Amino acid sequence: MRLGIDVGGTKTAAVVLDDNDVAVEELTRPTGYGRDQVLASVLETSAELAQRVGLTPDRFASIGIGIPGAVNAQIGRVEHAVNLGLDRFDLGSEAAARLGTRVSVENDVNAAAVGAYRYVATTGGDTSLGTDGLAYLNLGTGLAAGIVLDGHLRRGSSGVAGEIGHIPVDSGGVICSCGQRGCLETVASGSAIARQWPTTGTSPVHDMMAAAAAGDPVAGRIRALLFEGVATAVRILTLSVDVRTVVLGGGVTSLGEPLLSGVDAVLNEWAEASPFIASLRLGERIRVIPRTHPVAAVGAALIGVSNSV
Amino acid sequence: MRLGIDVGGTKTAAVVLDDNDVAVEELTRPTGYGRDQVLASVLETSAELAQRVGLTPDRFASIGIGIPGAVNAQIGRVEHAVNLGLDRFDLGSEAAARLGTRVSVENDVNAAAVGAYRYVATTGGDTSLGTDGLAYLNLGTGLAAGIVLDGHLRRGSSGVAGEIGHIPVDSGGVICSCGQRGCLETVASGSAIARQWPTTGTSPVHDMMAAAAAGDPVAGRIRALLFEGVATAVRILTLSVDVRTVVLGGGVTSLGEPLLSGVDAVLNEWAEASPFIASLRLGERIRVIPRTHPVAAVGAALIGVSNSV
Ligand SMILES: [Zn+2]
Ligand SMILES: [Zn+2]
Repeated sequence: MRLGIDVGGTKTAAVVLDDNDVAVEELTRPTGYGRDQVLASVLETSAELAQRVGLTPDRFASIGIGIPGAVNAQIGRVEHAVNLGLDRFDLGSEAAARLGTRVSVENDVNAAAVGAYRYVATTGGDTSLGTDGLAYLNLGTGLAAGIVLDGHLRRGSSGVAGEIGHIPVDSGGVICSCGQRGCLETVASGSAIARQWPTTGTSPVHDMMAAAAAGDPVAGRIRALLFEGVATAVRILTLSVDVRTVVLGGGVTSLGEPLLSGVDAVLNEWAEASPFIASLRLGERIRVIPRTHPVAAVGAALIGVSNSV
Repeated sequence: MRLGIDVGGTKTAAVVLDDNDVAVEELTRPTGYGRDQVLASVLETSAELAQRVGLTPDRFASIGIGIPGAVNAQIGRVEHAVNLGLDRFDLGSEAAARLGTRVSVENDVNAAAVGAYRYVATTGGDTSLGTDGLAYLNLGTGLAAGIVLDGHLRRGSSGVAGEIGHIPVDSGGVICSCGQRGCLETVASGSAIARQWPTTGTSPVHDMMAAAAAGDPVAGRIRALLFEGVATAVRILTLSVDVRTVVLGGGVTSLGEPLLSGVDAVLNEWAEASPFIASLRLGERIRVIPRTHPVAAVGAALIGVSNSV
């Protein structure tokens, strides 16, 4: 059995896969902040799930961890994970020493891409999924994609494959956290909306959408930028790697149908102006996976396997 | 022995590779216009080179053709090649019927990517070229890239992998041939320069560069857009597929050093503003292959092989 742990900014989700890669146990718990608490989350999650399946943690064939931020997957190091208060933390080796088994660490979006690939592969719909490829487009605090080509996660020569959120799209835009101006992430992400639509409510994204639906022109403009930004991400993924499937994920997708139909309207508008864009059928590439499916935890478990063989 | 033929808009270049993939014969001749003349170019080139190596054309292990435009490589059909006056032409089967051996057809930029990959692989410099990947960025009439990942040409799920020239970068730009506004190709390509700097001379690109060097402000602005556009292409290729090597090719690269240093200056400026961009070392990814090396013809020959096995 394999264990996959998705250490998110606020909650940690984990799943145990049996030897047929079927999920047999799941749990969700709050994530702590800083090295000690993040490591404790991982250890406690491992112990709890091991107990539930009648093992000790060292009996898992492998353990994989997905975590937001810059990860050096080769050595299991979290280089930066601002939201978790981590900087150059050897999570892989620290966890392995305490758990007694190999622990892989991967960026959470990459882990989710692997989990999404597995989900699409097993639920059908694309008979040539391997060669067609899949991207998981995360619309979370930031915007980034994980890319699976020929059945393998593409990390890239310097680990930034899929970091399309830092492609500038608006020369008159704001300065991004990366130092560039008008990155895609500054218009189409959770943080972009929170910046443009500060609210005392729990969710700037939902708040903005409600205001836009009620006719607020500022919210309407922010919403239009969001829809266009997501459509832009799909177009970039198509005109670079040309994946047939783009799975949308991340907190912003909790908007559900209004997000999908808004993006679709942008894509249709583009297709009307451009026979070339029309021929790419961008809208048909978009898929959503049920939010109850722990895609990043499953992917982390699968990555743990592939790194251990 | 294998034969590779690069059918260009004005000239056709061809190469014969021996069984060790070493070029043993080469030729260049003018390309005709329209089905009959293009097919005649291919047949005459094949006959001439076969004779030089003491064979008949049907004795080539395979023949590969690279040609500009939209190609359905699976069936060897040229869907559109405006500059050659071709529309839905089954070049592969027509040529195969007359030559008596299998003939593969591939988009010329993709063919050049395969040839460039082979060139870089055999001349060294990147010990993990396979996993790092390579893009061939063609700066010709248009702008497009061919992408080789894990040693294989990535065509994509609908054949548009690497078509980054049709990613819009300027919302106030001109309408592109594809119907979209402000595509990268409308600012950084041979046709973009010819449109902005019409000249009675033989080369708008060289003419514009000379005028810019002499202080003409309009030419200077066009030049700046060109440099920034090429840098943008390198950034997009890095933040999507993260290839470690971007080989520049196509007619615009005849500008040589002034082009390279101009692009480098843009990349350095970006790196100063963004530690993230600095960490990607974009300038170090750029390579140029001697223009005397028939990269697309070699790639076409190699593609002929891989499709025949
Ligand atoms: Zn950025
Ligand atoms: Zn275009």
